[in-house]
Amino acid sequence: MEIRACLFDVFGTVVDWRTSVSRDLAAFAAEKGIGGVDWLEFAVEWRKLYQPSMEDVRSGRRPFTILDVLHRESLVKLVERYRISALSESDVDHMNRAWHRLDPWPDAVPGLTRLKKKHIIAPCSNGNIALMVNLAKRAGLPWDCILGAETARAYKPMPDAYLNSCRQLGLAPAQVCMVAAHNNDLKAAKAQGLNTAFVARPTEHGPGQSTDLAPDAGCVDVPASDFVELAKKLGF
Amino acid sequence: MEIRACLFDVFGTVVDWRTSVSRDLAAFAAEKGIGGVDWLEFAVEWRKLYQPSMEDVRSGRRPFTILDVLHRESLVKLVERYRISALSESDVDHMNRAWHRLDPWPDAVPGLTRLKKKHIIAPCSNGNIALMVNLAKRAGLPWDCILGAETARAYKPMPDAYLNSCRQLGLAPAQVCMVAAHNNDLKAAKAQGLNTAFVARPTEHGPGQSTDLAPDAGCVDVPASDFVELAKKLGF
Repeated sequence: MEIRACLFDVFGTVVDWRTSVSRDLAAFAAEKGIGGVDWLEFAVEWRKLYQPSMEDVRSGRRPFTILDVLHRESLVKLVERYRISALSESDVDHMNRAWHRLDPWPDAVPGLTRLKKKHIIAPCSNGNIALMVNLAKRAGLPWDCILGAETARAYKPMPDAYLNSCRQLGLAPAQVCMVAAHNNDLKAAKAQGLNTAFVARPTEHGPGQSTDLAPDAGCVDVPASDFVELAKKLGF
Repeated sequence: MEIRACLFDVFGTVVDWRTSVSRDLAAFAAEKGIGGVDWLEFAVEWRKLYQPSMEDVRSGRRPFTILDVLHRESLVKLVERYRISALSESDVDHMNRAWHRLDPWPDAVPGLTRLKKKHIIAPCSNGNIALMVNLAKRAGLPWDCILGAETARAYKPMPDAYLNSCRQLGLAPAQVCMVAAHNNDLKAAKAQGLNTAFVARPTEHGPGQSTDLAPDAGCVDVPASDFVELAKKLGF
């Protein structure tokens, strides 16, 4: 079957969360006169709480809860651990929305713009709708619609995250291509019958990255060095 | 509070369903050699089954069911009533997707393009995600995301259709403006605390239209003659 839509992982694949979150928090800290925190380390520690926070939802221990709420709970834990005091509720809200202000990798907007001419393009991210909309608006990501955990009511890599997204587009999984820089995401999508494309993001985790440097042959249909090459390989 | 997002009714407000559906069906009928049907009347009859079909869901008699399914059930009834024979399942599917191929009013795309510079713009339609995505892609509607009945799991004018859409954008109702050509839609949105804008579509129902020719003063904050005037009134 012909591919009609491309779904995208976002954190790491479309945007550079590590640099963006640390830079955003460092700027806010400078403005507030908060010193003595390594904000790159802080961003990485925040991201480490990401999977465990979603695991509570995936396991059924907790009803579906959007990522903005999970992110904020993790942030409050870190603010305590780092003994950062004198933050108002509105300061914490602002810090939490650092995830709404992530910069795209340089090839993301040109690649998506090309892909959009032929295909439906949408995020299939664990980020919630408001996060994805604000991020896209600031970064100029030309999505046709916002899909993902909140619309599917399931966090990746649960099957429903992929299957409900295809269903909401009125498409069979074989008509959809999942694009990610993470092999585990693609493995889960492939298991549900989607096509898969791997785009390498070798600096997502910093200079010493050792994972996801290359596609796993078992779960990747289309490997690409960036979104522009991906667009060429998918017909533009 | 400042308006951050505009939500739009779509059928009648953004697109001309009556002319588009009848023209689409007439073209298909000509291709198939189906004669003797007044397709403008057929389109109007189809639309008459729209509110009753959603009422089954609103009342709780039926679990939430997307509009593509409700539209198809109504179409099957009409095909029988008009005694149109020799249609395959795929023919009926094609006819049903006439609602994915609606033409926008001439001011819709220029007005939305201006509004998008300052505000988040999204449909808040009873149409499902696939319908809205396919319609937008064909017509060039530059939505930031697709909201409405399917994401809210409620058909307008139920309160949740408006409230869940605001919540999914992370906004208070007072930060959102509902735009429609129908006073009853705006009355329901206003009752939930949204701002409201009325754009007149005096030929939606044909030359003899007698309803919704002017805004109801009680429920309309911003009256506008078209989307371009609306954009000017809302800051562009």
